Amino acid sequence: MRAVVLTEDGLEFRGDCIPATLPGQVPIRVLTAGICETDLQLFRGYMGFRGVLGHEFVGVAEAGKFVGQRVAGEINCACDRCETCRAGLRTHCPHRTVLGILNQDGAFADRVWLPEANLHPIPDNVSNDAAVFVEPLAAAFQIPAQLNLKGFRDIVVLGDGRLGNLCAQVLALHGRDPLVIGKHDEKLSLLQKLGIRIRRVDENQTARQADLVVDCTGSASGFADACRLVRPRGTIVLKTTVAGTTGPNLAPVVIDEINVIGSRCGPFPPAIAALTNGDIEVTSLITGRYPIEQAVAAFEQAQRKGQLKVLIDVSG
Amino acid sequence: MRAVVLTEDGLEFRGDCIPATLPGQVPIRVLTAGICETDLQLFRGYMGFRGVLGHEFVGVAEAGKFVGQRVAGEINCACDRCETCRAGLRTHCPHRTVLGILNQDGAFADRVWLPEANLHPIPDNVSNDAAVFVEPLAAAFQIPAQLNLKGFRDIVVLGDGRLGNLCAQVLALHGRDPLVIGKHDEKLSLLQKLGIRIRRVDENQTARQADLVVDCTGSASGFADACRLVRPRGTIVLKTTVAGTTGPNLAPVVIDEINVIGSRCGPFPPAIAALTNGDIEVTSLITGRYPIEQAVAAFEQAQRKGQLKVLIDVSG
Repeated sequence: MRAVVLTEDGLEFRGDCIPATLPGQVPIRVLTAGICETDLQLFRGYMGFRGVLGHEFVGVAEAGKFVGQRVAGEINCACDRCETCRAGLRTHCPHRTVLGILNQDGAFADRVWLPEANLHPIPDNVSNDAAVFVEPLAAAFQIPAQLNLKGFRDIVVLGDGRLGNLCAQVLALHGRDPLVIGKHDEKLSLLQKLGIRIRRVDENQTARQADLVVDCTGSASGFADACRLVRPRGTIVLKTTVAGTTGPNLAPVVIDEINVIGSRCGPFPPAIAALTNGDIEVTSLITGRYPIEQAVAAFEQAQRKGQLKVLIDVSG
Repeated sequence: MRAVVLTEDGLEFRGDCIPATLPGQVPIRVLTAGICETDLQLFRGYMGFRGVLGHEFVGVAEAGKFVGQRVAGEINCACDRCETCRAGLRTHCPHRTVLGILNQDGAFADRVWLPEANLHPIPDNVSNDAAVFVEPLAAAFQIPAQLNLKGFRDIVVLGDGRLGNLCAQVLALHGRDPLVIGKHDEKLSLLQKLGIRIRRVDENQTARQADLVVDCTGSASGFADACRLVRPRGTIVLKTTVAGTTGPNLAPVVIDEINVIGSRCGPFPPAIAALTNGDIEVTSLITGRYPIEQAVAAFEQAQRKGQLKVLIDVSG
């Protein structure tokens, strides 16, 4: 099959990749997939992943109870037997594989495999392009799953990229009025059109005032900025993962008694419902699309300044 | 007056220091003071402090409503006028001075000044030596002030030093059964005598299982160790501040959705009550004492391996 593979030598398109079929998992014919910040980090060496990349996708199930239906898939494949799984923390199963990230080939390919429990059917009125956003939008919906947002008045989202945009929209959908601080006029303008407050990062910021700062910068410097913006005893939701061994000094966390909450994958049902109801705008985030044969060019575009979501069309 | 001053050239004992008296603050004749990990960090350059060191002390108030009584003093001097103070977060006042740490001369001196609101009388049955521990013990009591401990079963305290010892005792006092992981046989043995579970850091540790890890290592590597011990979606209370600009990579916080809570100064009343009732053992932590003239030697001892609390006797 055709696939986009990360090897020791970099990213390659292969026309004749032999799929690593997984017994008990459902084969899915991939329609469209999206390039995520994590894909770019993996490309730079994060997690040391080797194999087929890609974890944001929509496809058609070729077996199981959703056969013939369009589905999106949760990316964590849990063992369902260990203590962590039994405690309900399937996304944290220590034995898990993660689609296109950890020990499981991903979705930039003609076919991808996932356990049936991970699949969610996509309603007819959600386009393929929109359905690609279910996975990153679910990550944004993890914030209200972790925090009671009613306790937070002054909310800042740091970063105007893909995830910052989705997090801001989800916060607004929950009746909050977040301020997005970003570097890119076009990306900020897109948020402004959605009625979301924006500010450029080089403008004067009110330090130490936010009740909640969501770090979606994808940058090593984001956390220190978040520490400067959050009020004493405020909360930082950390969405950014960066490759490397060092990070910021944590003294401000202690001095200001900040509460830092790591936040990763989120629930698919509210993400699918929000797309079905038209509550969240996603297709305006698409800034490029390439056929799978040109995936290397797609990655090159995704890494350039000013890009939001670059799609890879597989079939359809 | 006699005082121990941190200058550009290092730590000095001075016999003729002119006190920076503070209008409206109460003069206190210092009896005994203690050297804290923060003092050692300040000595190494943390916060860039210059002036009289020392913030753990017991003394006799020379004015105000506690005149003639022994007192311990809260170290954060708030403005009591700003929004942060009005919100009840006096220890986080952005205009605050901090005794012997930030813009206010400390207690390694014949006399120290503090606002009356910061003073707490010490009951007669609490010795001077024990009263020096009120401030660090209050920092340990900040943990139950921030967290409902009933939600945590498997608790690890990382670090067998002064603060680790006090935190473990406070957790035990709240009906928890913490495991202290440390490097020093003698310090661990002291905890074991108090009925607290101990383990050497070089023994096999059960990774990713603790509901709560309290980092009292005072070491830059403590946080990464805490991330390895805490379970997914577990909590790390961070007590350690370290000088420098970099720290640990925060990717594990995101991947395991860890909740990190910075924890600094705590409430004095439960600390004084615990010492009054004999609920917490502190005097066995004293491993050295020096007259104020020999404060430099006291600091040298405090920095040596195996030390817990080194006292500085000022008068009495």
